[in-house]
Amino acid sequence: MNDSYLNFVNSPFGARLARSLGLPKPEVLRRYRADQPEFGGLMAIGAGREPQLLDALANLVAGIGVTSVAHEGAGLWVPLANRHGLMTGRFEAADSGSQGKLAALLFDASGIEDSTQLEPLHGFFHDTLRSLGRCGRTIVLGRPPESCATPRQWTAQRALEGFTRSLGKEARRGITANLVYVEQGAEGRAEATLRFFLSPRSAYVSGQVVRIAAASAGAETTPTFDWRQPLAGRRAVVTGAARGIGASIASVLAAEGAHVIGIDIPTAREALDATMRQLNGTALAFDIAAPEAPAQIAAALDEQGVDIVVHNAGITKDKTIVKMTEAAWQSVIDINLSAQERIDDALLAAGILRDGGRIVGVSSISGIAGNLGQTNYATSKAGVIGRVQSMAPQLHARGITINAVAPGFIETQMTAKIPLAIREAGRRMNSMSQGGQPVDVAQTIAWLAHPGSAGVSGQVVRVCGQSLIGA
Amino acid sequence: MNDSYLNFVNSPFGARLARSLGLPKPEVLRRYRADQPEFGGLMAIGAGREPQLLDALANLVAGIGVTSVAHEGAGLWVPLANRHGLMTGRFEAADSGSQGKLAALLFDASGIEDSTQLEPLHGFFHDTLRSLGRCGRTIVLGRPPESCATPRQWTAQRALEGFTRSLGKEARRGITANLVYVEQGAEGRAEATLRFFLSPRSAYVSGQVVRIAAASAGAETTPTFDWRQPLAGRRAVVTGAARGIGASIASVLAAEGAHVIGIDIPTAREALDATMRQLNGTALAFDIAAPEAPAQIAAALDEQGVDIVVHNAGITKDKTIVKMTEAAWQSVIDINLSAQERIDDALLAAGILRDGGRIVGVSSISGIAGNLGQTNYATSKAGVIGRVQSMAPQLHARGITINAVAPGFIETQMTAKIPLAIREAGRRMNSMSQGGQPVDVAQTIAWLAHPGSAGVSGQVVRVCGQSLIGA
Repeated sequence: MNDSYLNFVNSPFGARLARSLGLPKPEVLRRYRADQPEFGGLMAIGAGREPQLLDALANLVAGIGVTSVAHEGAGLWVPLANRHGLMTGRFEAADSGSQGKLAALLFDASGIEDSTQLEPLHGFFHDTLRSLGRCGRTIVLGRPPESCATPRQWTAQRALEGFTRSLGKEARRGITANLVYVEQGAEGRAEATLRFFLSPRSAYVSGQVVRIAAASAGAETTPTFDWRQPLAGRRAVVTGAARGIGASIASVLAAEGAHVIGIDIPTAREALDATMRQLNGTALAFDIAAPEAPAQIAAALDEQGVDIVVHNAGITKDKTIVKMTEAAWQSVIDINLSAQERIDDALLAAGILRDGGRIVGVSSISGIAGNLGQTNYATSKAGVIGRVQSMAPQLHARGITINAVAPGFIETQMTAKIPLAIREAGRRMNSMSQGGQPVDVAQTIAWLAHPGSAGVSGQVVRVCGQSLIGA
Repeated sequence: MNDSYLNFVNSPFGARLARSLGLPKPEVLRRYRADQPEFGGLMAIGAGREPQLLDALANLVAGIGVTSVAHEGAGLWVPLANRHGLMTGRFEAADSGSQGKLAALLFDASGIEDSTQLEPLHGFFHDTLRSLGRCGRTIVLGRPPESCATPRQWTAQRALEGFTRSLGKEARRGITANLVYVEQGAEGRAEATLRFFLSPRSAYVSGQVVRIAAASAGAETTPTFDWRQPLAGRRAVVTGAARGIGASIASVLAAEGAHVIGIDIPTAREALDATMRQLNGTALAFDIAAPEAPAQIAAALDEQGVDIVVHNAGITKDKTIVKMTEAAWQSVIDINLSAQERIDDALLAAGILRDGGRIVGVSSISGIAGNLGQTNYATSKAGVIGRVQSMAPQLHARGITINAVAPGFIETQMTAKIPLAIREAGRRMNSMSQGGQPVDVAQTIAWLAHPGSAGVSGQVVRVCGQSLIGA
């Protein structure tokens, strides 16, 4: 729960000692606080040839109320910003006084149609990265490769992934780097995602690639919402909500305005009741693995329906496969995967999960990369990815999105029990050189549950500080 | 080029010392040698409910001439094997004398339609893994998730990825674990791929997922070939063929029967000539980045055409982006990516690359995961992945496949120059606890270039010993 090394090297004495010994100094990440402004500082705008997303960016900049400066490659930005009535200027690379002054770097690569046109990407970040402050944000915007008209364009757009992930690995200082592919026609659906990746809410989300899809013809429009309370009037079910990451998810969704229905096993009832009382939520003590649970949950939610379902409940029973019992296999698959399938199907069949709803499953880096001693767990968490990919097209017509988060090393009671050397390796092997907090997972889920995230479905977003580990 | 730690801990004295100190002991990997039988030993067959690929497996077992034993979950295997006239028996888990006796474990998961049906996967590997010998092979067979009829089936099939990758991470002893998804109707196209993953040719390929697609209706049938000389009569172009990995690729393709046309820059002409003389190949000294190169290469190949194109030539110019010059950016993108595009397009437009041909690009783990100091290189190598994904559907009708290999840490003159501590980390952070050899990349390319690999296209296969690093 507590990263004492990080605390130490960020104390006055520890910082001196770390510097003299050449030890790594992980940054204290800036996280979202309701009593501090979410956005601020200067944002530098860059662009490749014929950028197509500057209008969307101007709306974003106007919405969050920050000041922007245009890099020389983004000459179109200044007149555009002026038309939007925005404060703007030009970025001067030569100005050595600019160091640390920028809060975010945004590059519009949407018009790049050939690998020979990629150089402005280098030019922009080459010039601006040293001026980006601690916990700064970098976002590259492109078009989904698979939606491109020509192989050359697809190739150039796909190349952005290698760039963004490298940038995330070398930026350090708590800086994140993410790539957002905005489909043609989805420009109006990108704001919630761009806000998330610019916000301190995404402190531990880096090296990720997210696609924003356009609405299908005739689909319902995004409901109106208040950016300060986007989940107001919405009902959210969270499984495993009594403690740890689940309690943090419940808490963040409640802070965004949702009424939370927390589910946990009967033996955790006391903790569940306490958590839900704090959030003015509703506690439901059910064993989600019980055969009767889906019907019971459906019955409990039937009258008022729900808008958001977060499948957070999960267990581990680690053993190498040679030593793993059939019971250890079955219980992990059942609770982490099959129970999710049964509950979703019950809620969907009865229409309890309303149109425009949101489903978020909790997967894991282990589900992506596999892990020693976790054949059962990794199978279940890879299955969660399959669940999300297979259900997204099915739910599209009802305006329901389904996505997964894949946490990396998150500081919890569970990870606190890992032996020190292994824990330290897990903690440091990522671009932030530290473990994440439960709230980092919770904030990522809140973004996926956001009414403005209608264009994001069928995706897996890692909350791992850009962990080195992958597949 | 030389892993002295691996050599040391595998010497009599070093092995004793490593044991007493508890040091890791990487296995000396068994690699393909023309003077040794490629296949041998017992193969254990397992299956989930209603397996659909046992017929294909029986053909494979008959083709490579090994003896099989059926696990209790694969009761259908014995009568089927008998009908094929194969030697077969039953696997007895209780037989402690079986330790180390198995050479391969194959599990047919194709009939699994729901996450609740995954247990036989655990049962089979739980019972058999300890009987698998050094450098043994494990293969899980399934159906491509995206081709499944229901979300439940898709989810269960997708879950196999987490299982296989975990198995690869815990098996150790030079054992590989790979997942092969065989599309309905592609059963007859799986043999070349299954042979590769069973063979010592795939010594350093683990944790990979490969899909075998069915032929489209009316497509030409696979040409006949000789398994011992599958590339006989075929012409293969290899760029960067003078030395290192490129020379190894040329050598393996020639050993499989191909006439190799090696391309390298004029300054490497002497080495190129020497390599090609050894292989009875043809040397072409061209700078592939020169604007006139595509036309020159096309002209040189025009008369006889080519069947296989391997884009191996590549350079690195590492620097963090703040220090990277525009020239360092441009040259890496141009040689590693844009040149490939130009050469392919020239060969394809003129029909010089014949129908049924093979294109293989060399990507990199950096292209998948990004890497510090390699924004240019990772961008180019991610672009190679985009190239493969975008061109595959376009080339399908001509029977041409296009794929990429993504090497991890391969022992070359380049990696020999990396400082020791970083080199050791790169070498050991994979399931084989060692770097790969150029021949491992070459053998993987030879499999993709194989006439029997018609069902494999648009894919990226890592040659990395299941490196921990990924995205």
